[in-house]
Amino acid sequence: MSVADHLVCAVMAGGSGTRFWPLSTPAQPKQLLKFLGERTLLAETLARIQPLCPPERQLIITNRALVGAVQADVPQVPAFQVLGEPAARNTLPCMAAAALVAQALDPQAILVLLPADHWMADAEAFRQALLRAAERAAAGAIVTLGIAPSHPETGYGYIELGDELARGVHQVAQFVEKPNLEKALQYLGDGRHLWNGGVFVLRADRALQAIAKHVPAITAELGPLAQLPLGSPAWQSHFEQAFMRCPSISIDYGVMEHETGLEVVRLDAGWSDVGTWHSLLGMRAETQSNYVKGPAVVQDCEGCVVISTGPTLAALGLRDMAVVATLTSTLVLPLDRSQDVRSLVAEIKERGLPG
Amino acid sequence: MSVADHLVCAVMAGGSGTRFWPLSTPAQPKQLLKFLGERTLLAETLARIQPLCPPERQLIITNRALVGAVQADVPQVPAFQVLGEPAARNTLPCMAAAALVAQALDPQAILVLLPADHWMADAEAFRQALLRAAERAAAGAIVTLGIAPSHPETGYGYIELGDELARGVHQVAQFVEKPNLEKALQYLGDGRHLWNGGVFVLRADRALQAIAKHVPAITAELGPLAQLPLGSPAWQSHFEQAFMRCPSISIDYGVMEHETGLEVVRLDAGWSDVGTWHSLLGMRAETQSNYVKGPAVVQDCEGCVVISTGPTLAALGLRDMAVVATLTSTLVLPLDRSQDVRSLVAEIKERGLPG
Repeated sequence: MSVADHLVCAVMAGGSGTRFWPLSTPAQPKQLLKFLGERTLLAETLARIQPLCPPERQLIITNRALVGAVQADVPQVPAFQVLGEPAARNTLPCMAAAALVAQALDPQAILVLLPADHWMADAEAFRQALLRAAERAAAGAIVTLGIAPSHPETGYGYIELGDELARGVHQVAQFVEKPNLEKALQYLGDGRHLWNGGVFVLRADRALQAIAKHVPAITAELGPLAQLPLGSPAWQSHFEQAFMRCPSISIDYGVMEHETGLEVVRLDAGWSDVGTWHSLLGMRAETQSNYVKGPAVVQDCEGCVVISTGPTLAALGLRDMAVVATLTSTLVLPLDRSQDVRSLVAEIKERGLPG
Repeated sequence: MSVADHLVCAVMAGGSGTRFWPLSTPAQPKQLLKFLGERTLLAETLARIQPLCPPERQLIITNRALVGAVQADVPQVPAFQVLGEPAARNTLPCMAAAALVAQALDPQAILVLLPADHWMADAEAFRQALLRAAERAAAGAIVTLGIAPSHPETGYGYIELGDELARGVHQVAQFVEKPNLEKALQYLGDGRHLWNGGVFVLRADRALQAIAKHVPAITAELGPLAQLPLGSPAWQSHFEQAFMRCPSISIDYGVMEHETGLEVVRLDAGWSDVGTWHSLLGMRAETQSNYVKGPAVVQDCEGCVVISTGPTLAALGLRDMAVVATLTSTLVLPLDRSQDVRSLVAEIKERGLPG
């Protein structure tokens, strides 16, 4: 048996941001949107890992209100492997629950914890990096994927590389907070910094051991799940009650900062966190000036994101703009103001307009 | 009796342009849109003349398909005074029909022929100019209104002033075609050129006499209407058949270029022909940076036209743009590209998208 046979992938699909309003709504957040082709970002993420990890070894953690929509979107995943968090508790309780389920599925499980809403141009490169990480994890390491930076991004955390342990595998010297532009330019050039992509690979028992050591309150609450039959009403009931009582804390703060021997595997797969309208431009075909989706007529536009999920959208003479229309709302703003969507949504709510 | 008692106003409401797509449609062209407040441009036009000319002396000439919509929009006008042209024949047959109806209403009628879809900031100034024109018309003149230019417009025809006949009244030296920018700048400065506003004031008998002289084919077709009872089925039937057979020719080419003794009354009333999205900026309140109508949230925008007739529209960080949303379509373009709407509408039709 190879390490790949022990992979259990847990996809974190809890986001409900407003960054993609009016496309994203609480009932249809970013991970359930179809930015490319006919699959949602969540379904794309599962399809990307499926050659290594079939649906019966896939696990999705989302918020309770989205469980039905997620099950409908990826019906190939066993229904009881879609966990609905009763409340937001950041990422560490999520990792603990995922590790417990993974261990129930396979006592030697190697857990891959990854976001549901990222995009990769090169899925095969991603799987190769994942396999390399799994091999290191099988030997006891806590492994993260580090993304080769393509520009001096100030919106991400970075990983500083330590010694090289194998081809494409380094010790983690340290995790670095979001840098200023000067630092980001330095990181881009020095070859010693990668973006923190939020993907973790480690044995399930290793995860539970680390959590028990650093945040025992989570182990106290969720640990008893190991004694209950996976998918049973008793399991479900205990999960919901215990999860509510967990402290809210991230994987980074709760575990990673206190562990040593962390490793990072380099990933060079055309990655995007699909974080803003602007990031969609990176997903357009190379021959296209704009990212266009839905019934849209686009004339003399460049560098624009033009999306309609209903109305006929006609855009002319625009540069670097986002134009997004749904049956209920229309958004227009320059791509470099993407983050200001929040301010528009706030005023819409305040004025009681349908959003 | 004053001359005002003999006024009969005929409003030309036949336009069906695409310049205001997606707001304007064949079923709801520009003159039936509510750009300001709760009245359509047509209803505004009738309200503007009403102090001089009550509804029973108002006449509307539109295309046959719009008769029902026009009657519903201005129910105070007697239904048989809404004429539906069976086909487009330019403006001179329209003037002939209007003069015949005006004479049937009042043998001494002074006909005011005016577009349905223009806007004036100062309605009282418009009525004063109209009264002055009516006085000249009562004495036999053919009078047009000339608008004091506010900028070097190259899209309008101009009227060159001759001798001053009375305060604010000049002979027409000549009608001038749309000028280039250099000429337009000269016209703006020389005080001897006014915009041709497309408003004509003349006795109904004078109009019929001029048409009989210069385009007798129209008189031959429509003249017999004078012998039929206004509003009767016989009148209606003859009108439709005779109108179809009229030559298609404009008032300017058919009559004005061949008549002498034309006069022009100066109009300074904050006029706009509401010809493009850009022109709506002139109709905003003075304290506003943008023209906004409908459920819209507008942040950090300047010089923009933002209109929604349905969806919640959110615009941020825009300069000099038009953003227009209806339930079926959304348009976004820079205001200085307003004329390119036609090209978008053409592609929408070609691709069979709902418009």
